[in-house]
Amino acid sequence: MKIGIYGYGNLGRGVESAAKYNTDIEIVGVFTRRDPKSVATLTGIPVYSASDILSFKDKIDVLILCGGSATDLPEITPALAGEFNVIDSFDTHAKIPEHFARVDKAAREGGKLALISAGWDPGLFSIARLYASSVLPSGKDYTFWGKGISQGHSDAIRRINGVLDARQYTVPVAEAMGAVREGKCPELSTREKHERVCYVVAKEGADLQRIEREIVTMPNYFADYNTTVNFISMEELKRDHSGMPHGGSVIRSGVTGLAGEHSHTVEFSLKLDSNPEFTASVIVAYARAISRLAARGEIGAKTVFDIAPADMSPMSGEEIRAHLL
Amino acid sequence: MKIGIYGYGNLGRGVESAAKYNTDIEIVGVFTRRDPKSVATLTGIPVYSASDILSFKDKIDVLILCGGSATDLPEITPALAGEFNVIDSFDTHAKIPEHFARVDKAAREGGKLALISAGWDPGLFSIARLYASSVLPSGKDYTFWGKGISQGHSDAIRRINGVLDARQYTVPVAEAMGAVREGKCPELSTREKHERVCYVVAKEGADLQRIEREIVTMPNYFADYNTTVNFISMEELKRDHSGMPHGGSVIRSGVTGLAGEHSHTVEFSLKLDSNPEFTASVIVAYARAISRLAARGEIGAKTVFDIAPADMSPMSGEEIRAHLL
Repeated sequence: MKIGIYGYGNLGRGVESAAKYNTDIEIVGVFTRRDPKSVATLTGIPVYSASDILSFKDKIDVLILCGGSATDLPEITPALAGEFNVIDSFDTHAKIPEHFARVDKAAREGGKLALISAGWDPGLFSIARLYASSVLPSGKDYTFWGKGISQGHSDAIRRINGVLDARQYTVPVAEAMGAVREGKCPELSTREKHERVCYVVAKEGADLQRIEREIVTMPNYFADYNTTVNFISMEELKRDHSGMPHGGSVIRSGVTGLAGEHSHTVEFSLKLDSNPEFTASVIVAYARAISRLAARGEIGAKTVFDIAPADMSPMSGEEIRAHLL
Repeated sequence: MKIGIYGYGNLGRGVESAAKYNTDIEIVGVFTRRDPKSVATLTGIPVYSASDILSFKDKIDVLILCGGSATDLPEITPALAGEFNVIDSFDTHAKIPEHFARVDKAAREGGKLALISAGWDPGLFSIARLYASSVLPSGKDYTFWGKGISQGHSDAIRRINGVLDARQYTVPVAEAMGAVREGKCPELSTREKHERVCYVVAKEGADLQRIEREIVTMPNYFADYNTTVNFISMEELKRDHSGMPHGGSVIRSGVTGLAGEHSHTVEFSLKLDSNPEFTASVIVAYARAISRLAARGEIGAKTVFDIAPADMSPMSGEEIRAHLL
């Protein structure tokens, strides 16, 4: 299976290194909007200009689009879905129906197959929500995120005057998770589900009280949460907070029995050292599935809901029935 | 969707009560090898003789086979797979390839669709193993069962001379699960993964030391485990141990990055008050999927690996993309 990587940030590098663990995958090249000469890949795979992508139409089975959801993917995925089988990790939940419709139209017109919103949320967490709600129709589900770095919240802190650098961890509230796991189906406010822990490097002489106040009162990002601000040195930030860990849990509890007398809890959890590398690993498994579905003649846009688990595995049907069932 | 229930034990009753939560399902009837007049259903659905099943060929979309894996399903599923779209919960892992082949042949000859081995293990746990191994190819997975009642082990104790009744709980060893969750990939012996806790009602005057010795030294069932035997009264057994709880966890940890420098842990866990009712709920969701796949013309044997998540949900593609992705 021949893969192209379109966009070479953390996610693109994750796809490149995932090829090491997926021996049925060959990476044809990285496509960048930067000067290709300025980009050095981890494993020496060739770098091409994004503007040359169409000359690779016959050389790539699946093109993995490694752009951001805010501005890149809403343009790139529909633009390329008519030319290649593509996968993206579009994660702006509220805009998924619109994105799906645009990608579906482009892919159908070009006779290609596209998978949008692959990764872990949306992605594996979405599947966990679907399985759990299908097998426990009478119930309630909860998604907790973290402990993990939120890039968006870290960026929001960095924009505050007097801040040199910052990392923000989203942390699920242990008591809330405990109550959910016990099947208590609590009503939880935003504040009761997650807290936010910030590590901030301030400019020398900056007013730390003002910076802290600006963080904890920031609407949408922090005001609805219990937020802790820790001022640390640049050395401490680099030493202790340079990773990109993340994770979380999807938990559904529900009842069965004629009188709803039996409770059940289904939980799917991830604990990730590297958010982009794990996301890339998920995407690569879906690239395998998309390549197989395309070979069967399927076209249009799909999501993770439409992919049978068997199509993600390098093993044959016989092997997975014998070893994993 | 019209469902038939073939076999009316705990699982059959679970399917019947699951219909309450799945309003797109109508149960046509229960089919029993006992005298139908001797069987009273929970919700008053009609009871027919199993020998009349073929006269319902045009009245049932999916027939759910609620028999045991030891002797019932190896005969019943291939015998009926040519006549109906069927689902079973065949769970003898080692014999799945043989069972699959026989059911596949029968279903293809009859132009019908069959799903074998639905439930939670095999079933949802199998899917968890497949997703986790596909997204983390370099890793190791573990399945822990319990805390839960094992019918097979409880039965084995009941066959000991001097035992009136017994319940056996399979209990995962907390330290082992902790080490796995931390990504330590330990090598675990059978004894290190699970322990067995027995509640036994002995006949008056029976030799309790002999009974305990016979339990803890029983080959295959108990000898390889740390086993605790508690003698209790029949009243205590009925009061405290009459439920059928079960559950467990599939945990895989694996690495990404060019040097395998990042670790990740994927966990899927179930905590079930009623093993048969939850299993039945899973089967009913797969009945929905089988009915849809059959309507699209698919035939032959399938497993849970072959079913796209979307086909299990009563919601439309638009709805699941908008609400669950």
